[in-house]
Amino acid sequence: MVSKVLIAFIGNPRLNSYEGEPMSYKQRVIKTLRVRNQQQIGVLDKVIHAIASHGGDLGDIKTLSVGTFHSVRDITVICNDDGTLQEIVKALKDVKETHLEAVIDDVMELHRGGKIQVLPRNPVKSIEDLRKVYTPGVASISKLIHADPEQAIEFTGIGRTVALVTNGSRVLGLGNIGPVASMPVMEGKSALFSQFSGMNMVPILCDTLDPKVLIETVCTISKGYAAIQLEDIRAPDCFEIEDELIKRLSMPVMHDDQHGTAVVSLAAAINACRIAGIDFKHVQVGQIGLGAAGSAIARLIMHFTNHQVMGTDVQKIAVERFKELGGDVVSSVQEMMKKADVIVATTGQSGLIKPEWVRKGQIILALSNPYPEISIPDALKAGASFASDGSRVNNLLGYPGILKGAINARATSISREMYIAAAEAIVRHTPERELVPDPLDPTLHERVATSVEEAAYRSGVAVRKDTLEAL
Amino acid sequence: MVSKVLIAFIGNPRLNSYEGEPMSYKQRVIKTLRVRNQQQIGVLDKVIHAIASHGGDLGDIKTLSVGTFHSVRDITVICNDDGTLQEIVKALKDVKETHLEAVIDDVMELHRGGKIQVLPRNPVKSIEDLRKVYTPGVASISKLIHADPEQAIEFTGIGRTVALVTNGSRVLGLGNIGPVASMPVMEGKSALFSQFSGMNMVPILCDTLDPKVLIETVCTISKGYAAIQLEDIRAPDCFEIEDELIKRLSMPVMHDDQHGTAVVSLAAAINACRIAGIDFKHVQVGQIGLGAAGSAIARLIMHFTNHQVMGTDVQKIAVERFKELGGDVVSSVQEMMKKADVIVATTGQSGLIKPEWVRKGQIILALSNPYPEISIPDALKAGASFASDGSRVNNLLGYPGILKGAINARATSISREMYIAAAEAIVRHTPERELVPDPLDPTLHERVATSVEEAAYRSGVAVRKDTLEAL
Repeated sequence: MVSKVLIAFIGNPRLNSYEGEPMSYKQRVIKTLRVRNQQQIGVLDKVIHAIASHGGDLGDIKTLSVGTFHSVRDITVICNDDGTLQEIVKALKDVKETHLEAVIDDVMELHRGGKIQVLPRNPVKSIEDLRKVYTPGVASISKLIHADPEQAIEFTGIGRTVALVTNGSRVLGLGNIGPVASMPVMEGKSALFSQFSGMNMVPILCDTLDPKVLIETVCTISKGYAAIQLEDIRAPDCFEIEDELIKRLSMPVMHDDQHGTAVVSLAAAINACRIAGIDFKHVQVGQIGLGAAGSAIARLIMHFTNHQVMGTDVQKIAVERFKELGGDVVSSVQEMMKKADVIVATTGQSGLIKPEWVRKGQIILALSNPYPEISIPDALKAGASFASDGSRVNNLLGYPGILKGAINARATSISREMYIAAAEAIVRHTPERELVPDPLDPTLHERVATSVEEAAYRSGVAVRKDTLEAL
Repeated sequence: MVSKVLIAFIGNPRLNSYEGEPMSYKQRVIKTLRVRNQQQIGVLDKVIHAIASHGGDLGDIKTLSVGTFHSVRDITVICNDDGTLQEIVKALKDVKETHLEAVIDDVMELHRGGKIQVLPRNPVKSIEDLRKVYTPGVASISKLIHADPEQAIEFTGIGRTVALVTNGSRVLGLGNIGPVASMPVMEGKSALFSQFSGMNMVPILCDTLDPKVLIETVCTISKGYAAIQLEDIRAPDCFEIEDELIKRLSMPVMHDDQHGTAVVSLAAAINACRIAGIDFKHVQVGQIGLGAAGSAIARLIMHFTNHQVMGTDVQKIAVERFKELGGDVVSSVQEMMKKADVIVATTGQSGLIKPEWVRKGQIILALSNPYPEISIPDALKAGASFASDGSRVNNLLGYPGILKGAINARATSISREMYIAAAEAIVRHTPERELVPDPLDPTLHERVATSVEEAAYRSGVAVRKDTLEAL
């Protein structure tokens, strides 16, 4: 018999239930400290000790210059808050062999002017180039497409460009900050998509909280794109918006906060069980928190395991929705901890899971950033056989390959089989005893795309012929 | 006294009146002929003679290889139609010292996959990069912008990205082909804008012929951009759309087919007069064809010269609109040819102006592509002191600098002073005895941008403070 195991998907801020704004937490701070050290044995050691012992996580260390008497280094430090940074700065002043030359904000520098750019694929160098890419050459391509709209996939960027649509109503950890303030997140996702898929992604900022306006807007502009990714839209609006767009558009439409998160979480859960030597398909899964991410995770797991998932949420509307999806409702977190083998907790509530509720052998993935429902050490001490936090369960593992695969298949929508194929590709690409693969590995994204494309053919998600005919 | 001079802006297909679809004309064809010539004196001469004498305009010639017995060259040929190309191919077969190896469609190759791409400005190479451009770094920038929306101009691409909006209802020379078939044109404009402004332009394809839907759509997504360029939207819808967007958005909004065309046409008219030794400010200008481009040209010239412009059009609605703009209505083309010094004809009607109507000393700019209302030789033979066609009066001369200047000034709209400043910058940058400058000269676009920015400050078009406060 399989031991009862509990996996806590202890959100990732985006993994919250939709009972309100996500819990406010202090923003983590990344700074680069430029230090000028005396050229002696043990100085860098002292500097690093001062940083680490005052709560700074160390990032990259770059040596800028090494002289006879001094060396200059840039040390990147990640702190939980500004107070911690001030402590570190103070501590460094007490190390007399070093001088703190500057506290540099690389994050701001990297954002200046935005994180994406639009460039011509063939810069115009002569009048002849101009004739070919502009008038009169361009007219022959327009006529070709007018006669046969499917040619647009080949001879324009439409076939390789995704619209990243948001209204900024639920930005990770920041809540409803509106579309403009969400732009850095959108540009980050676009930049990463372009880098890892070789396709294009452009942010579309919708200045509306009305789902109907957002739906109409996206439908009106949709013909310029191969797919639509919805991002950081609050629940329950995100459900209505995604459902309606899937219905109306014959192209892949994906709300990443639901399905991207579900794919990556499923992969992490499978890997966690693998590490613990348990067959994920035969454990009882419990989902704590049934918001956008939570309900999508539960749905995908039910589809994957073919077993009912237990779920709990403080919001009645979320519980009702979960019932409709075929879930098994449990009354409380404590109750679920007794019953379920695998728990996916997406409440964002720090400390929600008491250590005394954890049972021996349970697997706990505490995915919350920065404050999980239960910390890894607490979970392990309480008897969990495996525990992890959310810092590595990144949607970047999923969305570039999922969309690229769906686009390459010219799929008219994304089926559950395609999402599961993405999760399985992530699992296959995960090194032994790791929870997830390296998100910066280009091969991962290629593999995910290929698996998703194959799954599209298998599940019969047809070429977007109907759309093309309607163009 | 100034002699009576007539300038015919004999459209450029986009310079048509709005009485219906533009006159259909055969599409010009650009192909590259790969020829393998015997290595003897005079062979290339024969090849070129065969091409030119059968109606082919010669483009670039590239030598691919030179051997002892043969040389291989790529010769680009522009023909008025496919029939001409076939004639040339046939003629080349009769030149026994050459072998036509291939007829290459460079235009198609240059369009494959689209003409623009979205790239990260700083590709992510390490987990530390990821932390900085994505989570958790990105949240600090989002918070900064949430607290002070003006920061979005500095720390996102919003401050340097223009939306190029079309519904494809009046594409140059092709008519109402819809948004998807217009994409090659949009990508061409975007690629050129990005190349010559260093900023970004992204096409937004609106699948609607309802001006109200288009207006609402653009307003909903407008906060993601620094400016809006309207393109290839049919009249009279384009007037309503532009007017309403200017009213509702506190950012530069420009319908290029009106104002971009007017700027470039004004510059060409000034230069034509300069070549003929006439002061443009003291000639009577006549406008034939009062559609989107024609009425904008007339308005800009009236503003520039401070004199009434004469106008004529077969469409009553166009004539009424012209009257409202303060124009002086003339009953027919023949009548205008008698009265006006400078005529701007934007009807797209080949042969509309009879040579016997042309008076001695008139300047005729026959800007139509490919069939002007009167040909240059006919106009000159009939006594015109200057004539030109429309092939060189390209909107590319204007729009990159106009928008860049307006954006750099953070202008809330584009004033007529700014458009005139753009035209004057183009005039100043035109080599002596030329009609227009080289559109591929980056300095031109810099000069236009600077002049427009200065004009924005002069005309008091304020920083978009109100928009920012409303964000």
